[in-house]
Amino acid sequence: MSAKIRLYVEQALGQGQPVQVSRDQAHYLFGVMRLGVGDWVALFNGRDGEWQARVGEAGKRGGELLCESQSAPLRMPPDLWLLFAPIKKARTDFIVEKAAEMGAARIVPVQTEFTNSERIRQDRLQAHAVEAAEQCGGTYVPEVAELQKLGPLLDRWPAERQLMFCDETLAGRSSALSGLLAGQGENARTGGPSGPWAILIGPEGGFSERERARLAALPNAHAVSLGPRILRADTAAVAALTLWQQALGDW
Amino acid sequence: MSAKIRLYVEQALGQGQPVQVSRDQAHYLFGVMRLGVGDWVALFNGRDGEWQARVGEAGKRGGELLCESQSAPLRMPPDLWLLFAPIKKARTDFIVEKAAEMGAARIVPVQTEFTNSERIRQDRLQAHAVEAAEQCGGTYVPEVAELQKLGPLLDRWPAERQLMFCDETLAGRSSALSGLLAGQGENARTGGPSGPWAILIGPEGGFSERERARLAALPNAHAVSLGPRILRADTAAVAALTLWQQALGDW
Repeated sequence: MSAKIRLYVEQALGQGQPVQVSRDQAHYLFGVMRLGVGDWVALFNGRDGEWQARVGEAGKRGGELLCESQSAPLRMPPDLWLLFAPIKKARTDFIVEKAAEMGAARIVPVQTEFTNSERIRQDRLQAHAVEAAEQCGGTYVPEVAELQKLGPLLDRWPAERQLMFCDETLAGRSSALSGLLAGQGENARTGGPSGPWAILIGPEGGFSERERARLAALPNAHAVSLGPRILRADTAAVAALTLWQQALGDW
Repeated sequence: MSAKIRLYVEQALGQGQPVQVSRDQAHYLFGVMRLGVGDWVALFNGRDGEWQARVGEAGKRGGELLCESQSAPLRMPPDLWLLFAPIKKARTDFIVEKAAEMGAARIVPVQTEFTNSERIRQDRLQAHAVEAAEQCGGTYVPEVAELQKLGPLLDRWPAERQLMFCDETLAGRSSALSGLLAGQGENARTGGPSGPWAILIGPEGGFSERERARLAALPNAHAVSLGPRILRADTAAVAALTLWQQALGDW
């Protein structure tokens, strides 16, 4: 009894709970994946953990799944936001996918002064986050926020949330990251809370002088370097999430 | 005098050295990027560092660049190989790009028992590595090897090279990585050599039992976990390179 297919659903999950299958889900489960009555599917909804469910009815336009037992509890990621400036479509999709896999709790596309993108398709990016969660075995799907301007976001930045920002002009310089994270990590390992954090990945053109000044003025902002080479934004996102998860997160 | 365009060339670079431009390079420099006589280009060849060169002649089918001054010394990456099992085309391209950005010295596609790919286009992957080096400011281009079978590669594994392999069946379990790397990192920070290393990223279907046994039998192989979620191969490559570079490498 271990389903190979994981499906994110909106409905409540629980012992004996029936879950109606939408037309799209029916097409995927019964058409593409060729599941039939009695086959297993793993379900999660971001609230009730992961459940093993059996196919009760399978039709072209819908069907029903029946939850039989919980196979994993809900595991919330750490309270970590990933803020990034959208870039070309494929790389933006990758950043959202990677952030979901790496265990960000919230993904916030931001418009900086040097960002090319004027808008994003929030629904499409959210669907990428769902697919990544289905794929990586997570029981939680990070929310993808609407595109926001970086300036106002920093103006009303919550006082308790630490912000790690990755500045490509720091490439090659040593940074306070290891010390900062080592100290915090000690707290985390001894059970102290690392508290809410965010990671901000700059746009390909870098931050503007004004943005850099604003970041420097934030009491909880920490500039870090990601090595001597200049990383693309999607690489930087994974690298920064790795450092954070290793030092302060759930790795 | 700071060229925005970086170009990898095969020729030797040095004070006053003329560099002939191929037809493809001429198309890129003079057609696409619209450079003219007197404009600057940064050149590197993986051996002589980075040089600022001026356009001496610009034609449709060729041209000449003249090296004026060295703007960066050759900076070799640490002696780190990235071994990975090729996956779908776009993700394989990404892994090569990321490995070059992250500072791997050599990229080795490996065929495992559960690898779908039977072959790769080595020349195309090498071109991706060149492009990534041009983009990230590196002065070195990692060699992309031909596809090799993992079994024989492990059979003749060099005794002095440590191997960190990322096993998705370890997801969620703690690993010896932090201790291992912390100890080694101490060496690295105090000037001791971290020695030659390799990172092996498994295929999407995981390693076979036989491969796992062979890895377990290697004296210098270290299994590590990359957190509680199962990462895609391209994500795992960046995450593993980050951990290694941070602890033992040039970050």
